[in-house]
Amino acid sequence: MARNLAHKLIASHLVDGDLSPGMEVAISIDQTLTQDATGTLVMQEIEALGITRARTEISVQYVDHNLLQTDEKNAEDHEFLRSASQRYGLWFSKPGNGVSHPTHMQRFGLPGKTMVGSDSHTCAAGSLGMLAIGVGGLEVALAIAGHPLRVRMPEIWGVRLTGELPPWVSAKDVILEMLRRHGVSGGVNRIIEYHGPGLGGLTAMDRHVIANMGAELGATTTVFPADSAVRDFLRAESREDDFRTLAADADAPYDVEEHIDLTTLEPLIARPSAPDNVVPVREVAGTEISQVVIGSSANPGLRDFAIAAAMVRGRQTDHAVSFDINPTSREILEDMTRMGATFDLIAAGARIHQSGCMGCIGMGQAPAVGRNSLRTFPRNFPGRSGTRGDSVWLCSPETAAASALTGVITDPRDLDQDYPELALPENASVNTAMLVPPLPEEQARAVELVKGTNISALPDFPPLPDRFEAPVLLKAGDNISTDEISPAGASALPLRSNIPALAEYTFTRIDTDYPRRTRSHPEGHIVVGGHNYGQGSSREHAAITPRYLGLQVVIAKSFARIHWQNLANFGIVPLEFSEPSDYADIGTDDTLVLDGLRETLLTGDELDVRNTTRNRTFRVRHRLSPRQVEAVIAGGVIPLLASRT
Amino acid sequence: MARNLAHKLIASHLVDGDLSPGMEVAISIDQTLTQDATGTLVMQEIEALGITRARTEISVQYVDHNLLQTDEKNAEDHEFLRSASQRYGLWFSKPGNGVSHPTHMQRFGLPGKTMVGSDSHTCAAGSLGMLAIGVGGLEVALAIAGHPLRVRMPEIWGVRLTGELPPWVSAKDVILEMLRRHGVSGGVNRIIEYHGPGLGGLTAMDRHVIANMGAELGATTTVFPADSAVRDFLRAESREDDFRTLAADADAPYDVEEHIDLTTLEPLIARPSAPDNVVPVREVAGTEISQVVIGSSANPGLRDFAIAAAMVRGRQTDHAVSFDINPTSREILEDMTRMGATFDLIAAGARIHQSGCMGCIGMGQAPAVGRNSLRTFPRNFPGRSGTRGDSVWLCSPETAAASALTGVITDPRDLDQDYPELALPENASVNTAMLVPPLPEEQARAVELVKGTNISALPDFPPLPDRFEAPVLLKAGDNISTDEISPAGASALPLRSNIPALAEYTFTRIDTDYPRRTRSHPEGHIVVGGHNYGQGSSREHAAITPRYLGLQVVIAKSFARIHWQNLANFGIVPLEFSEPSDYADIGTDDTLVLDGLRETLLTGDELDVRNTTRNRTFRVRHRLSPRQVEAVIAGGVIPLLASRT
Repeated sequence: MARNLAHKLIASHLVDGDLSPGMEVAISIDQTLTQDATGTLVMQEIEALGITRARTEISVQYVDHNLLQTDEKNAEDHEFLRSASQRYGLWFSKPGNGVSHPTHMQRFGLPGKTMVGSDSHTCAAGSLGMLAIGVGGLEVALAIAGHPLRVRMPEIWGVRLTGELPPWVSAKDVILEMLRRHGVSGGVNRIIEYHGPGLGGLTAMDRHVIANMGAELGATTTVFPADSAVRDFLRAESREDDFRTLAADADAPYDVEEHIDLTTLEPLIARPSAPDNVVPVREVAGTEISQVVIGSSANPGLRDFAIAAAMVRGRQTDHAVSFDINPTSREILEDMTRMGATFDLIAAGARIHQSGCMGCIGMGQAPAVGRNSLRTFPRNFPGRSGTRGDSVWLCSPETAAASALTGVITDPRDLDQDYPELALPENASVNTAMLVPPLPEEQARAVELVKGTNISALPDFPPLPDRFEAPVLLKAGDNISTDEISPAGASALPLRSNIPALAEYTFTRIDTDYPRRTRSHPEGHIVVGGHNYGQGSSREHAAITPRYLGLQVVIAKSFARIHWQNLANFGIVPLEFSEPSDYADIGTDDTLVLDGLRETLLTGDELDVRNTTRNRTFRVRHRLSPRQVEAVIAGGVIPLLASRT
Repeated sequence: MARNLAHKLIASHLVDGDLSPGMEVAISIDQTLTQDATGTLVMQEIEALGITRARTEISVQYVDHNLLQTDEKNAEDHEFLRSASQRYGLWFSKPGNGVSHPTHMQRFGLPGKTMVGSDSHTCAAGSLGMLAIGVGGLEVALAIAGHPLRVRMPEIWGVRLTGELPPWVSAKDVILEMLRRHGVSGGVNRIIEYHGPGLGGLTAMDRHVIANMGAELGATTTVFPADSAVRDFLRAESREDDFRTLAADADAPYDVEEHIDLTTLEPLIARPSAPDNVVPVREVAGTEISQVVIGSSANPGLRDFAIAAAMVRGRQTDHAVSFDINPTSREILEDMTRMGATFDLIAAGARIHQSGCMGCIGMGQAPAVGRNSLRTFPRNFPGRSGTRGDSVWLCSPETAAASALTGVITDPRDLDQDYPELALPENASVNTAMLVPPLPEEQARAVELVKGTNISALPDFPPLPDRFEAPVLLKAGDNISTDEISPAGASALPLRSNIPALAEYTFTRIDTDYPRRTRSHPEGHIVVGGHNYGQGSSREHAAITPRYLGLQVVIAKSFARIHWQNLANFGIVPLEFSEPSDYADIGTDDTLVLDGLRETLLTGDELDVRNTTRNRTFRVRHRLSPRQVEAVIAGGVIPLLASRT
């Protein structure tokens, strides 16, 4: 039987289960990726679990999020991560080396391999024919220890591409079109597999753009075939030997089918403040802007900077616009500099920033309140920029550069320019000097973890009670992101390795009083949510910090995959309304009672919840596997594993 | 009679007074410089004083300090400064255009002109034969309005340079030698004038390095002659027409004489945490480091980056070191990029940051606690890096780059390298596109000030009481810097335009409880200090924020010039112990009584202070001019001027 590529990749790594959608499968993991904002916890978890050395083929710890160093915390995290990488046998990518996803693709990406990463955009590696899945940090720690990843088998969503992108339209517009069509939960429980003749016009780095923002659709991951475009990419990276051909069989079936004729696309833009608020650029052209930022893992390639450089060459960006350039990596900045793009950008008025995530994770570059900021980033959730009341738009480098020149949102087709033909270097810069290799095992054992004052111990969580009676302290709407549960940004992000301190930020984007109110309820509390609860970033802090404040149960209409897993990992019970309309009949501060909780989780899918405030009862269900139930009852995976040793 | 250059410059602009040291002189001002961290207040003062348009030849508002944008405050300040510049007829240098001092030198510096700037390193312009003085923001506002600057006439300190710097020794080592010899108050009430045959080997930008850090000696300013080196500089900047020759007369006398034989100098370094803790590099060689930063107004020239680039070319900096490069300006980054230095630095492992002050003002790049950081910056006051418990050293780019290569403090002469010969471009990049010119008067009048939520109104201060009885809430030691009175850094600096919010940081570097304690004393309070009280940065926030909290009188052994002036400008009485030994007989919380304060200030130099806690009396004196006394009695210059309209 003809098989699609996603099935081939999973089958080749299958440890347990079968490929029926909805069933739990166990997949062996070849590589892991961690970044600093989630990695400090991963290293603490490795320590707590007593893991001595990475058993993966390649595990890399990147430092790309916390680069601002507004006080000692960032630098101390860097020292901790360096020492932990050396202790546990990981590669260490130094601060300034670059954003994890493109850097990993350039140096370590291998067609046919599996990877988990504690970053939701880990899926970007699907651009090379990898099966790469963003998960919570604890799952990465377990993968580093050699455990397989367990996930519910997703549906495979075949997206057939035909035609060719017109001038001024690029890969970002393809993924914005997907978001326009399907919204931020359109990919939930699906793997997106691109195929078809339209792939021929997309380079591996173009595919990275599309695969990266599969995360914004809520997809489990995205895969592309390993074809001649991947070979070209690996050749340019001096790694042609790492290439192998991988593709779906001819006429392979997909669970869901989709078609995009690239020829028909036009420049698109996501309006504030959700990635799926997508409209054609021409519909909003003329809107005044005050900032343009090019960079991030969503437009990371040399080509994305080079096209902007070519467009502004010999011109000046508008006086009222801050034109910010975030080179994705040291290697890409080298290439930009070699080919003259850096010079052209500076001469046109760009602020060249250090290589890293920067404003994409709210570390700097925050705009003024209500002033329009155009970014080539993947996300524009409210406040993620660092500014409460921000107005952030997402677009392609072409649209961004065109708007920087004019000072208003501009469809690049309306510029009086020919579409630039780029002469990119045939060979990319390869420079591994900021990648510190793993130490040999004997030397590694002698390395002491360097723990500055910002590295707190992981909190202990007690087992799940059988009867739980507690108030609803927060009722959230649909599509609440982990940015709203545990914000990033320049104040909070440096506290990622310090749970008690970070907990004070929990849910403050939507209720500044939440942390204080939790302290009046030592018995614990409940949060109620709408659809797609916990979308966005993979940060397990969005589970750990509310748990630290007493959150024990979340009842939502539906969950985003990674956050759902993180909740279970840290002993919070994720429950779904059996009847979504029951959502309307719960108010903040209502008291809910869940009786026989442990028993019901072990024996059935559904249970009753009594609302004693309103004197009514409704039903909820869980989708936890027996393994997850065991963990939740133990208080989380760490206490469960600890109890076995 | 033969005249030195400083006297010539003052005489050519003298409005009032004579050149006897200690007498107040009034000097007409041709140019002003403001940066964003002090400039927002200057613009608020211009507004409060009802000034409608700059009457100087050139006034430039730079944005170089607050570039991190960790939330909306920085961006809102930028919008305010842009609108104020347009409203009042100033040039506006956009964020990312560069650090004020070298940028001003390159685009606006003119031999023979006078300038005041609300930044203590304004004196750097002395490198071109300007008389450039760092002052409080209010003095700049008055200069913008066309008022002359009034200062006590300093002594002129002639420093004769002979010989030639050996390989691996550069301009930074000259000023470190001055600090080694004379300490941070060695230049108080002096203008330093360099002369002699040794000047022939120093370019204009080398002289900038030396003039800039004259501020660290406490000098009123530094002057160099305008000679062929200045002509060469202006020619490279495409401004040869702006050149005129200026020099001291042969055998001109100086109030104080000094000699440095450049041939005898060796690489020097200031240990933590004062700029005058200077020792030869070889004495501390081998000390482990974790960070190296090259940049700032203290080593701003293309040459300073190019020498580092040449040293690391084809090599790799140490794995354990973060190698940070802060290009001084967009133009210098263009030149670095054109000549290949940017590429060489990146390839060797550098993190290239945006153009600006960055870590020099504690905006990012904070090191881990106790880890050694080597910087080419001008200052290493405790905590200025953003890290409490920091360990910051100051050195030349040569020493910095050598140490980055080895991972330990390294005398560059011990590297196995020949001293690089640099081929700098003959013509510097000239790119004024990020310099927004003043609007014509009619258009300017139509511009509205854009005030985001971070722009607070200036507080009103009441007149001085005639009898003042209050406690000493803080007793400080010698050389307290304005960084310790009103810290910079990433938390506080964004609040520079918001006095009530910023006041909560006052003195917290030395007493975290100070702001709270002031609130128990609505009657006001007193601070006692040692020698050189208020050294360092020109920030008038160090006067306004404690005044806002009730500070009315400071009694110190001696004052740094700019802060002394700022205190008087904002209605705080700066008094000196007549007998410095009386300092020892005051304790924190002692109650002091000053009787007949207004009368005594008006009629005499000395007055009695009664310590009712210890039942003793001591004498203090003031050095205020009649004009300053009038301002202090009125509650400050702004209420005084307002009362006249």
